[in-house]
Amino acid sequence: MSLAFSSRMAELRSSAIRDLLSLTAKPEILSLAGGLPAPEFLDRERVAAEAARVLAAPSSVQYGETVGSRDVRDAIARFDRCGRDLDGDHIVVTNGSQQALSLVAQVVLDPGDDVVLESPAYTGALQVFQAAQARITTVPLDDDGLDVEALTTLLENGLRPKLVHTVANFHNPRGVVLADDRRRALAALAERYDFRIVEDDPYGRLWFDVAPPASLAAYSDRVVRLSSVSKILVPALRVGWLHADAELCSAVERLKQSADLCGSSLTQQIAAGLLDDRQWLDPHVDRVRAAYRARAATLVDALEAAFGDDVTVSRPRGGMFCWVRFGGGVDTELLLTDAADEGVAFVPGAAFSPDAEPAWGRSGARLCFVTYREELLVEAVGRLHGAWSRHVRVRACAHARS
Amino acid sequence: MSLAFSSRMAELRSSAIRDLLSLTAKPEILSLAGGLPAPEFLDRERVAAEAARVLAAPSSVQYGETVGSRDVRDAIARFDRCGRDLDGDHIVVTNGSQQALSLVAQVVLDPGDDVVLESPAYTGALQVFQAAQARITTVPLDDDGLDVEALTTLLENGLRPKLVHTVANFHNPRGVVLADDRRRALAALAERYDFRIVEDDPYGRLWFDVAPPASLAAYSDRVVRLSSVSKILVPALRVGWLHADAELCSAVERLKQSADLCGSSLTQQIAAGLLDDRQWLDPHVDRVRAAYRARAATLVDALEAAFGDDVTVSRPRGGMFCWVRFGGGVDTELLLTDAADEGVAFVPGAAFSPDAEPAWGRSGARLCFVTYREELLVEAVGRLHGAWSRHVRVRACAHARS
Repeated sequence: MSLAFSSRMAELRSSAIRDLLSLTAKPEILSLAGGLPAPEFLDRERVAAEAARVLAAPSSVQYGETVGSRDVRDAIARFDRCGRDLDGDHIVVTNGSQQALSLVAQVVLDPGDDVVLESPAYTGALQVFQAAQARITTVPLDDDGLDVEALTTLLENGLRPKLVHTVANFHNPRGVVLADDRRRALAALAERYDFRIVEDDPYGRLWFDVAPPASLAAYSDRVVRLSSVSKILVPALRVGWLHADAELCSAVERLKQSADLCGSSLTQQIAAGLLDDRQWLDPHVDRVRAAYRARAATLVDALEAAFGDDVTVSRPRGGMFCWVRFGGGVDTELLLTDAADEGVAFVPGAAFSPDAEPAWGRSGARLCFVTYREELLVEAVGRLHGAWSRHVRVRACAHARS
Repeated sequence: MSLAFSSRMAELRSSAIRDLLSLTAKPEILSLAGGLPAPEFLDRERVAAEAARVLAAPSSVQYGETVGSRDVRDAIARFDRCGRDLDGDHIVVTNGSQQALSLVAQVVLDPGDDVVLESPAYTGALQVFQAAQARITTVPLDDDGLDVEALTTLLENGLRPKLVHTVANFHNPRGVVLADDRRRALAALAERYDFRIVEDDPYGRLWFDVAPPASLAAYSDRVVRLSSVSKILVPALRVGWLHADAELCSAVERLKQSADLCGSSLTQQIAAGLLDDRQWLDPHVDRVRAAYRARAATLVDALEAAFGDDVTVSRPRGGMFCWVRFGGGVDTELLLTDAADEGVAFVPGAAFSPDAEPAWGRSGARLCFVTYREELLVEAVGRLHGAWSRHVRVRACAHARS
């Protein structure tokens, strides 16, 4: 067949790294590459009980409202305390926050429109903006999150983005938190230069010692806030949401109608029931946070013990990911093959960049610290160090020979 | 805020008819406007039992594969007997078949590309192709479905569509079935003129006396077959699928990754379990078909009894919808307001056309015969006749006065 695809498919090319990672999906490989919540905190019994409860009502099985039912939106508004009171009228329930991001991009962007992403960026955001055929400019991150001064310079030099995407809380993949003063400054830029901020916040509840600052939505109505139950309840409910101005919500509703008519009344009602059961939810989230904090510490300690000065790793303050830079001039995309041979996997830093040669180098990698228990994390670091040592040795030999 | 939306949102304008129909969503109104399956056949107990069963396995709550798990795709391939053996490798599981349609359109179409729709057309297809900013050409339907000769003429005159969309079985809204010889002819046209056919088949299992002919997919690999469990199990599972060539499946997978990462492992496993339980499923579908057949007969009989020659209605052979043309020079969009006053609703024919003045006139309406039991269908027709009589009388007076 000679049937062609749309031009957006050329942008959304198959990722070499994704293909590589698919090779690491074997039971014998300890994968720190995924973004999967720890399975032991996905409370299947509680979900089953809630499913049985909501299935008593006919509305749980019928088509539902495109934006989600009033009850579900109100439950989300009650739950998502983020430094601003949310209004169920301004919430659209989506299939995970990824759908919210995709719909917002399609509602706002024409091909060629400018958007700003963080560097490194959430890969799901890269894919969305590539599919939208947007012109992507990246702004670096440091330990306080998005470099708002660098963004200001770009804006002063004439960049006019329609959207700026940020993972302000426990960044994926960098793990950092956007500082409060930068939140205020970023919100002020949105007002001044007339763009929307997409605040993508799946991890905000997973703080270890200190809760993150107030949502960007507290400082501007130009903020589209995205969040989800995937990281605190269960991913398979596919319940996320956006909170935005009425005009954007209405546009997203119209597009979602054509995208999939509506979400699942069943899983949305289950999610709402669990979010409303604070007597169960609050201690549940506390348990998840405590476990993730312990695992993060175990992983970082093991990395520092094994690699010493050959690794730079920042201690995560929440979330699921830890960002590592390897010494020895290693390219993590090449290292991954050796790592897979040793039975361990991670995501190479290049996966998080739209550029072939990202400004922050090719020595970075994202490690997820939540999927495994402590002893397996230590084992994974041992394998990783074995792979790295072998990789560096082989490279040195190759250099010596050439 | 002066923030603009993408150009696609101008195409995807809010429908005046949809706004009108939202006014009819009141408990006192008997709505024949919806497309909701009869609630008494949405087996909540069976769903609850299946949910409890699948929730015993950890995979039911975790993120799943973007295309759906192998097990789920194989269960769908076993179920969807359509005159061609389907291959789980060529299936992508989606959030209802609406998402499949939307993804296929985005994967194949650039703005300005030509597509062919039936006239009248499924409104969800209209929305998808408007959002894709495609150039829509419509081809009329008659009692044997899409007029393939009319399409041939368009192709001979130079039209080069990338997609032709058809609801071949129990058309929404027209109720007709595409004749077998036309299926073969349409498939041959796809080969000759190098387009894909999107066969949108949510209703094929709901036949009354005779099963529909073999799927178009039996005659060409250029057919993208869409179907769903929404009309035979429950809509809230949001489980649909597409079956297509490997190249299209792979492109859809990449786009779905950015659209929502993956569907719900939970609802997909529930759907697969129910589809595989033939001892329950087969008699269940038989009961649905028998009930829908009886309701279709009741509605048509009541219409003919009340309206006599003032209505033209074709007796449905399956599905959920019956297409009615009112006499008396009535515009059904205007009639709807009077109908709502009388406590009954339907979808005016104009909703199914991209044109302001569709070739098949403004006297048509779609009536759903499945949502209510017989006595309420008779009551709805009584109200509809009351509204129609009043409407025609008032129009006559207005004419006399002017």
